[in-house]
Amino acid sequence: MSGSILGNLFTIATWGESHGKGIGVVVDGCPAGLNLCEEDIQLFLNRRKPGQSKFSTPRKEEDSVEILSGVFDGKTTGTPISLIIYNQTQRSGDYSEIANYYRPGHADLTYDVKYGFRDYRGGGRSSGRETIGRVAAGAIASKILNTLGIDIFAYTKSIGPFEIHTFDRNEIMNNSLYMPDANTALDASSYLEECIKNHNSAGGKIECIISNLPAGVGEPAFEKLNANLAKAVTSIGAVKAFEIGDGIEVATATGLSNNDAYQYDENSNIIKLSNHSGGILGGISDGTDILLRASIKPTPSIAASQKTINKSGENININIKGRHDPIIVPRAVVVVESMVAVTVLDMLFMSMTSNMDSIKRFWEKR
Amino acid sequence: MSGSILGNLFTIATWGESHGKGIGVVVDGCPAGLNLCEEDIQLFLNRRKPGQSKFSTPRKEEDSVEILSGVFDGKTTGTPISLIIYNQTQRSGDYSEIANYYRPGHADLTYDVKYGFRDYRGGGRSSGRETIGRVAAGAIASKILNTLGIDIFAYTKSIGPFEIHTFDRNEIMNNSLYMPDANTALDASSYLEECIKNHNSAGGKIECIISNLPAGVGEPAFEKLNANLAKAVTSIGAVKAFEIGDGIEVATATGLSNNDAYQYDENSNIIKLSNHSGGILGGISDGTDILLRASIKPTPSIAASQKTINKSGENININIKGRHDPIIVPRAVVVVESMVAVTVLDMLFMSMTSNMDSIKRFWEKR
Amino acid sequence: MSGSILGNLFTIATWGESHGKGIGVVVDGCPAGLNLCEEDIQLFLNRRKPGQSKFSTPRKEEDSVEILSGVFDGKTTGTPISLIIYNQTQRSGDYSEIANYYRPGHADLTYDVKYGFRDYRGGGRSSGRETIGRVAAGAIASKILNTLGIDIFAYTKSIGPFEIHTFDRNEIMNNSLYMPDANTALDASSYLEECIKNHNSAGGKIECIISNLPAGVGEPAFEKLNANLAKAVTSIGAVKAFEIGDGIEVATATGLSNNDAYQYDENSNIIKLSNHSGGILGGISDGTDILLRASIKPTPSIAASQKTINKSGENININIKGRHDPIIVPRAVVVVESMVAVTVLDMLFMSMTSNMDSIKRFWEKR
Amino acid sequence: MSGSILGNLFTIATWGESHGKGIGVVVDGCPAGLNLCEEDIQLFLNRRKPGQSKFSTPRKEEDSVEILSGVFDGKTTGTPISLIIYNQTQRSGDYSEIANYYRPGHADLTYDVKYGFRDYRGGGRSSGRETIGRVAAGAIASKILNTLGIDIFAYTKSIGPFEIHTFDRNEIMNNSLYMPDANTALDASSYLEECIKNHNSAGGKIECIISNLPAGVGEPAFEKLNANLAKAVTSIGAVKAFEIGDGIEVATATGLSNNDAYQYDENSNIIKLSNHSGGILGGISDGTDILLRASIKPTPSIAASQKTINKSGENININIKGRHDPIIVPRAVVVVESMVAVTVLDMLFMSMTSNMDSIKRFWEKR
Repeated sequence: MSGSILGNLFTIATWGESHGKGIGVVVDGCPAGLNLCEEDIQLFLNRRKPGQSKFSTPRKEEDSVEILSGVFDGKTTGTPISLIIYNQTQRSGDYSEIANYYRPGHADLTYDVKYGFRDYRGGGRSSGRETIGRVAAGAIASKILNTLGIDIFAYTKSIGPFEIHTFDRNEIMNNSLYMPDANTALDASSYLEECIKNHNSAGGKIECIISNLPAGVGEPAFEKLNANLAKAVTSIGAVKAFEIGDGIEVATATGLSNNDAYQYDENSNIIKLSNHSGGILGGISDGTDILLRASIKPTPSIAASQKTINKSGENININIKGRHDPIIVPRAVVVVESMVAVTVLDMLFMSMTSNMDSIKRFWEKR
Repeated sequence: MSGSILGNLFTIATWGESHGKGIGVVVDGCPAGLNLCEEDIQLFLNRRKPGQSKFSTPRKEEDSVEILSGVFDGKTTGTPISLIIYNQTQRSGDYSEIANYYRPGHADLTYDVKYGFRDYRGGGRSSGRETIGRVAAGAIASKILNTLGIDIFAYTKSIGPFEIHTFDRNEIMNNSLYMPDANTALDASSYLEECIKNHNSAGGKIECIISNLPAGVGEPAFEKLNANLAKAVTSIGAVKAFEIGDGIEVATATGLSNNDAYQYDENSNIIKLSNHSGGILGGISDGTDILLRASIKPTPSIAASQKTINKSGENININIKGRHDPIIVPRAVVVVESMVAVTVLDMLFMSMTSNMDSIKRFWEKR
Repeated sequence: MSGSILGNLFTIATWGESHGKGIGVVVDGCPAGLNLCEEDIQLFLNRRKPGQSKFSTPRKEEDSVEILSGVFDGKTTGTPISLIIYNQTQRSGDYSEIANYYRPGHADLTYDVKYGFRDYRGGGRSSGRETIGRVAAGAIASKILNTLGIDIFAYTKSIGPFEIHTFDRNEIMNNSLYMPDANTALDASSYLEECIKNHNSAGGKIECIISNLPAGVGEPAFEKLNANLAKAVTSIGAVKAFEIGDGIEVATATGLSNNDAYQYDENSNIIKLSNHSGGILGGISDGTDILLRASIKPTPSIAASQKTINKSGENININIKGRHDPIIVPRAVVVVESMVAVTVLDMLFMSMTSNMDSIKRFWEKR
Repeated sequence: MSGSILGNLFTIATWGESHGKGIGVVVDGCPAGLNLCEEDIQLFLNRRKPGQSKFSTPRKEEDSVEILSGVFDGKTTGTPISLIIYNQTQRSGDYSEIANYYRPGHADLTYDVKYGFRDYRGGGRSSGRETIGRVAAGAIASKILNTLGIDIFAYTKSIGPFEIHTFDRNEIMNNSLYMPDANTALDASSYLEECIKNHNSAGGKIECIISNLPAGVGEPAFEKLNANLAKAVTSIGAVKAFEIGDGIEVATATGLSNNDAYQYDENSNIIKLSNHSGGILGGISDGTDILLRASIKPTPSIAASQKTINKSGENININIKGRHDPIIVPRAVVVVESMVAVTVLDMLFMSMTSNMDSIKRFWEKR
């Protein structure tokens, strides 16, 4: 069934395979009147582009986006925005070997079982290149949110055993690992070089902060803001855990240590003395920073020898060749940020009909 | 907007507040011809019923389910199944005090901001009683899955600092904490008694295993099986983290340690030498056990003194009175199991159109 | 699959069979702060209640609605509103005979094929009583729309060969056929008496007008306002045709006769010199009256002799006994009105995110 | 909000404007293993291509489709199929004049009100070229249905006052009006030539027949097969009425004349002695031919003088220049057929979970 469409009011439909003609996304539900040009989207795509550092595949892809519809005279028209990014290196020859065996940690086997066969070139639809459409859509969602004063940013929290100790937002874009702590970035770099030397790979954590989101966004029961964020983030290929606020730490906390006390400050504004909940209660934003975290598994494609099977019924050993990232985390930072932006925007829109007063005001003001 | 409806082919719509007339769910999309009676559903509800042990609120609720539609001559008819559970103790007097202040860790404030006012009696819709509808629907989903040979069960993995060391499935139903390890259950009990004495509360972890699910269930991109499980599980009130397979541990693993090697066994069946992935690759089930985990925060309602604010603009101290569980985890076990069952069934149905061969076989066989 | 749920932001989930315990609906997505009591809903239900005239079944049903959730202190809370109407006359004995044969014009055969068996008592889910849930939800949608100044009303346009010549809105509620033309109502009454005498039944047309809907409601391509109205109205059991504006007459019109010319009036307001389009262009409301029409088939249950088959493999003749309306149209008027109200409200909500300017204004005003 | 996405299991997302870079569609949910090439789709597109006869605009567009994803080694992979048709004649200069006024019968005004501005070139998204994406998707849906033995075809039933008297399926593709009656096609041609001479345009009716669809497709209540067909067909730009079976004629029929009697034939197969219902009862297919009809309004773009307004506040007279069809009907035949195919396929898929027996058989057979 349909699995590549996400959202209710702001909807994205992604398509494309690693070694097909291109990758793309249709963004449907973007409001009219937003200034939008290809450069807005390209800036996001550049953050996940390969070949940016020694820790990403040297495969050269420009990943240049083209706007095909939905924009007129530099502004969105309210109709579907179709974006295309043509694939440039389609060296299918590289992949003839893997057509016949199943790579551990990849979706080769499950695709074969589900569909009866698969596009084996570079992982086909299950390739990391599938996220290009997500990021292109995320750039648009982010621009709308920024226009409304809402800020979303993500960064690498840890790589292998190395987790950040300090936080400097300006540092994030300064190092190729997108870490807000320059020293930890250095340690992580050394660790990754060791991984490469060992024909191995590493995992890590990505954190994302949503600031200035109005209170009241998110719906009770199933459409909780955190639940939709969980779905959006865990739908990214390598994510194996999702945490909101204190995350798994709550399991060993107590009510006294975990509850966030409210107080009025001197100006009668409501403040919280802590933020263990990560800015969401009952599935609804409370107006403070929302903090979430994703744990990313190590790149499954490694050069070291691995046991597996082939389609001829044999147990074999393989060494995966080719151009593979020793770590996915840095390039996935903007993917997480994009999925969060798309979800927050959709739920912001959905929360506009929460109460009669604001609906009445909306229609009177028009 | 609508937030209490979940699912595509097998859909549940829950309703009801803690101190309203009742709680219920409409299950739409249940296939015809399933033997179903109230006892099937009651067995699930009894597992989350209050008053079962000293660690759950002594509030007495029978939580008896009544089937209002969709069943005829003991079998489902294929049309919506409406289930109602009347509330019995609606002592609204208990709650007059909390109408005026915001309990830390609860959704009181966010509901007020979103909706302009709230049903403050027992938390209204944000009460744990909201999960009754989920469990009633989960009982039906589980029965269908069992009929197809698929088995889902959940249990308490940890309470506060105490995590299970051994695993005995038969033990799960033997202790009131639903732990598969009798010794850890004893330690956890002592810990909870300490919590009660300190007017405090505890959190913990719930684990769930899905066995015998066919390979091929789950859709690429956004409708991954793990993504929908993440949404369903984190939509449960107190869940702050969701993990699949090795979960957050993957962040410190390497490709070599995390990849699951395939091998043919002596009968030419495909086996995996490990299951770090938790039975899902590329968002699609691989036929092995699926393992997931939820971290549950401590009960926010505690008798110890807490700082908060009231609606008159004052900073105050409160001690929450009344009948509250010192821990949510044991009663939430069946809630997790239910949300997993509902999601797995919906995705199993959706995966029936994955390839032309099986569609053709289906329509030829009719 | 799920078929009894409709809507995106304002969603209704109906349930219940003719001779089950009751009929109901869960309305999810109703904004908080609407004054709502059972009387608001009862007024709508009374318009479709049986036994109101000699042209509706004498079967006595009070059809009293009870609000089970979602309302607190007389106002909606923003959470699901569950409504129940208990069935009172469940004389299942009446229906033992029809269990074994298939009534022409009814869904008996298609239900049996689809589901393997059916609740044959009074048509089960395919009974006209299924519309009770629709009307209860429609009462709420109408009340919200009225609060926003939007007016929706339906009436009988024709019965058999008798179509209205004049239009007096006040007359609609004055005759039991809900016709805005007293003279035609008299003619139609005589015609229906003839039908009853002949053990036969009649069909007719219902028209519905939506006034004061803001321009700009409805989405291009598939979610056109007219397309969703078409779905909602044709989902009512006996509707076999849906028309908007001039409807089927456009097939013989010309561009010159069918186009509605725009002009500025003396106050520089835009007016149209005609309304052949029925108030919608490109799927979007233009601010003028929206006019739609449904053609309703004659009641299939007739006392006259009909050929059919039984489940024992025999060709038989039947005379359907019992209490049946000689015409469905008058009681279906409020059903059409309800489906239109539910759809218009949902699309009104969805159109709130059409352009950046109004979104910005919304969030600034909060 | 999102309006260009349709379907649940088989989903289509269309995009593109008349004078943008191109038109396209993403088809998500197409099963794997279908043989598919561009020629399959091109054959459908050619049926709606302009310049095929004197009754369609001489505007030259090749409308060549390119498959961008979802097909590998000549077979669908189960992942999204992205199709693009580049626009070739983007002579935007033609349209500078209409930027400033509102054409009667077009969506110019409603787009301006809804979105604040519009892409005025050739109607932008509201152009008839929007249907190209629908037809491309319809070609795929039709091919799947054909593989399952289901046949769908549409034709012109009437043009202006000329309606077919005879029916010869082979004749449909023989005349440029797609009429199954050669004589009526001649009459209609003369009528259209008269329209052109008078700078006027004509409307007509399209009929569509679905054969060999299994009984049991369609869901009770809102997701009736006829209701989803009504939505899909009336979402086509110029459709103002939708009929199923006898359509509006039922309003003057009686129960006796309108009911379809069942009989067993000599081989104990169930037959119906008539088909007034058009093959659907209770929203569910009964296995006989499904017959539906759409009424299409006359082309609103006419060369004759019309009153309208401009954006400078003036009442003006216009004569619309350029290349316009005097009738939309013949080119819309394949659009209706496509929307029907997409809808029938989606509902066929959805009906695969109607009863436990067939679900069990499906999973056992795998």
